[in-house]
Amino acid sequence: MKDTPFSRSLVHRELSALHIQDPGTASIRDIRRLTDSLEQRAGKPFVRMEMGIPGLSPPEVALQGEITALTEGVAASYPPIAGVPRLKTEISRFVRLFMDISVPAECCVPTVGSINGCYAAFMAAGRRDRDRAAVLFMDPGFPVHKQLARLIGLDQTSFDMYGFRGAKLEDKLRSMLDSRRVGLIVYSNPNNPAWICLNEQELAVVGRLADDYDVVVLEDLAYFGMDFRRDISVPGEAPFQPTVARYCDNYMLAISTSKAFSYAGQRIAMLAISANLFHRSFPDLGRFYDRTELGAALVYGTMYATTAGVTHSTQYGLLALLQAVNSGKLDFISPLHAYRDRAKRMKELFLANGFHLVYDRDLTEPIADGFYFTIAYPGMSGTELVSELLPYGISAISLATTGSERTEGLRACVSLVHPEHMELLAQRLALFHAHHPLP
Amino acid sequence: MKDTPFSRSLVHRELSALHIQDPGTASIRDIRRLTDSLEQRAGKPFVRMEMGIPGLSPPEVALQGEITALTEGVAASYPPIAGVPRLKTEISRFVRLFMDISVPAECCVPTVGSINGCYAAFMAAGRRDRDRAAVLFMDPGFPVHKQLARLIGLDQTSFDMYGFRGAKLEDKLRSMLDSRRVGLIVYSNPNNPAWICLNEQELAVVGRLADDYDVVVLEDLAYFGMDFRRDISVPGEAPFQPTVARYCDNYMLAISTSKAFSYAGQRIAMLAISANLFHRSFPDLGRFYDRTELGAALVYGTMYATTAGVTHSTQYGLLALLQAVNSGKLDFISPLHAYRDRAKRMKELFLANGFHLVYDRDLTEPIADGFYFTIAYPGMSGTELVSELLPYGISAISLATTGSERTEGLRACVSLVHPEHMELLAQRLALFHAHHPLP
Repeated sequence: MKDTPFSRSLVHRELSALHIQDPGTASIRDIRRLTDSLEQRAGKPFVRMEMGIPGLSPPEVALQGEITALTEGVAASYPPIAGVPRLKTEISRFVRLFMDISVPAECCVPTVGSINGCYAAFMAAGRRDRDRAAVLFMDPGFPVHKQLARLIGLDQTSFDMYGFRGAKLEDKLRSMLDSRRVGLIVYSNPNNPAWICLNEQELAVVGRLADDYDVVVLEDLAYFGMDFRRDISVPGEAPFQPTVARYCDNYMLAISTSKAFSYAGQRIAMLAISANLFHRSFPDLGRFYDRTELGAALVYGTMYATTAGVTHSTQYGLLALLQAVNSGKLDFISPLHAYRDRAKRMKELFLANGFHLVYDRDLTEPIADGFYFTIAYPGMSGTELVSELLPYGISAISLATTGSERTEGLRACVSLVHPEHMELLAQRLALFHAHHPLP
Repeated sequence: MKDTPFSRSLVHRELSALHIQDPGTASIRDIRRLTDSLEQRAGKPFVRMEMGIPGLSPPEVALQGEITALTEGVAASYPPIAGVPRLKTEISRFVRLFMDISVPAECCVPTVGSINGCYAAFMAAGRRDRDRAAVLFMDPGFPVHKQLARLIGLDQTSFDMYGFRGAKLEDKLRSMLDSRRVGLIVYSNPNNPAWICLNEQELAVVGRLADDYDVVVLEDLAYFGMDFRRDISVPGEAPFQPTVARYCDNYMLAISTSKAFSYAGQRIAMLAISANLFHRSFPDLGRFYDRTELGAALVYGTMYATTAGVTHSTQYGLLALLQAVNSGKLDFISPLHAYRDRAKRMKELFLANGFHLVYDRDLTEPIADGFYFTIAYPGMSGTELVSELLPYGISAISLATTGSERTEGLRACVSLVHPEHMELLAQRLALFHAHHPLP
């Protein structure tokens, strides 16, 4: 056995202690616990690529907005469940200025993190028609979205969209929708973990078919503005964030603040719903809700019962932030370039040591540098590779847990790999490569 | 038609405009919209008794705790889903010092308002056994709890406990549990809206039967410490908050901060679960969750998917507050006496004008003065009374919406009736009484 930064026996002991059978199929949370524990035992750091934790500072203007609201006493009174009216207006302005779409303030709702918005969206869209209780996931994707469907009791179907980009997408989607069992289509754009980005032509296909088949589209914008090949940072000016909302009437947009605004801790996100869908009545919702209009059921049914609204002061924090961003006083995109630069450097290091990218093309272009990338090593499955990297002090999750068909790979997140870790990563990858010579 | 502070024609117009068929069966939210609108049109205030909105200032120590945490940067990073470890420890200490029970920190979880804790509790307790998917409500109760059961798809059963106090409780409960279909018992103590308070003997019966029948008890402590007849304000000293937790192993306690700590705006509450129940495995949970231990399913299943944790800074706000309360530096009970004093004065005014209390006895004692009371007027049903009080500028909700069998009454909440409103209430009640002479 060759010497590694973390001894194989230590890794085995900790895996046993934490009851992790196979790191390759373990959850992100389990990998995190394992890595925490290994760092503590060995007294040295891991290069941590497992968690999609944002690593930048939150905007000062948002913090000041929260502090002012606290000082003014908002902690005493229940927040409006549908959101503070001024915040709703500012969200509506945000999607107009950065997405070039029109969503009335009433249909713009702050949620307790994007997951709460997605939960409410799954509940409403999955229950609006008892014969359309299936969710179609355009994979690979965020594993928690699949947990949502299971928790709510919805059926699931999926395909790996990497093989169906561009002109191939329409036929594939039709084949999945023809059964008329699907009530909801879900995807993330940019994609977690593959970082492929659906373009306007593909989104037009999704939107047109959603209207044709009367299916709701939930567009997860967890990485809003982070396809850095197009700079969307100027309010009201093209280019805009690509979105299906331009192409259909049946959309819900879940816009996270965690990465785009480095505001993950405060659990606030935005849900924007097409006015048409928001006000549409679905008799089958009456099985679970007092009201049958989708928007009312979603807000006064699900959101009331799961949270009764977003932390009052945090709504004012986001309000202050959006005012600054919408008026052009705060460029929220530039600080995020740090992620792009890390991805570029990390990919170079992996490629120089025998690894290759799994999802390497975005249609005809090379995959962009962003928050995630996907890598593999010749002769190893993704699950083996996750395990084999642990003694070298490098943690990641296997693509197998994301609905990907590319089981040879793993997902690397750049957010916790700060510039000062790059040299460590270079050394460890070189050692790994030396210990695993390629033919 | 006699002159009233708000003309009957105005009231009718606004009811039509808001599509409210009958104020007597309308939701609290609808009554609130109606009252807002009437106040605005007529340019004078209502005496608002419909909303259970706390009306006191939030504790400074909590606000400072939040502000410090924001300044230190917690907004950037995801909060632990199960709660900040120090907060969990302090919640455990709180239930020991004020309830005299022992719940390990691991089993003490902050939630996004008490409703999020109840949602997670209903999901876990209602799904742990496919043959026990019914919730037994000890009514009257909080209408939103019934919405929870419907939303999750659980069966419901209930009884009005006012007729089954003391020695009568055991037989009644047995008759409801004998079918073995009930998986969860839910009640609020003190009770919303009747303000009856189950005593230790009654709680012992509930607890013993819960263990005998293997049913989970969810004790809603929305009005923690607010039975002012027993002063629980000294940490670690009797008397303590009465609780079923002393009498069974199958409990979950939902402790709101909205009223007890005047912290409704920030959406944080505490869920304390018996260690035995938390760690118990229920195979039927595997239908919806990766893990079958109730605590893990509740936290890493439902809470992860509905919110992914409580606003990070707010967890530090509650931490600072609990540290002050647990160490005896902050008496959180005294400020709440304002509610008691208002209830006393308001009841006097109602009783002096022909009204009587509906739920008037708490076992052998008169009902205590607290956050709510219930009233009726001879010759009118509760729904008629709600409507008939509107022209007099007094708003409330009918008991019919709370699962009460006492359909003659309505619920009055004292929180928004400040001392300066008492004279107005006195005048309006006198006018109402003059217009509705009793035989």
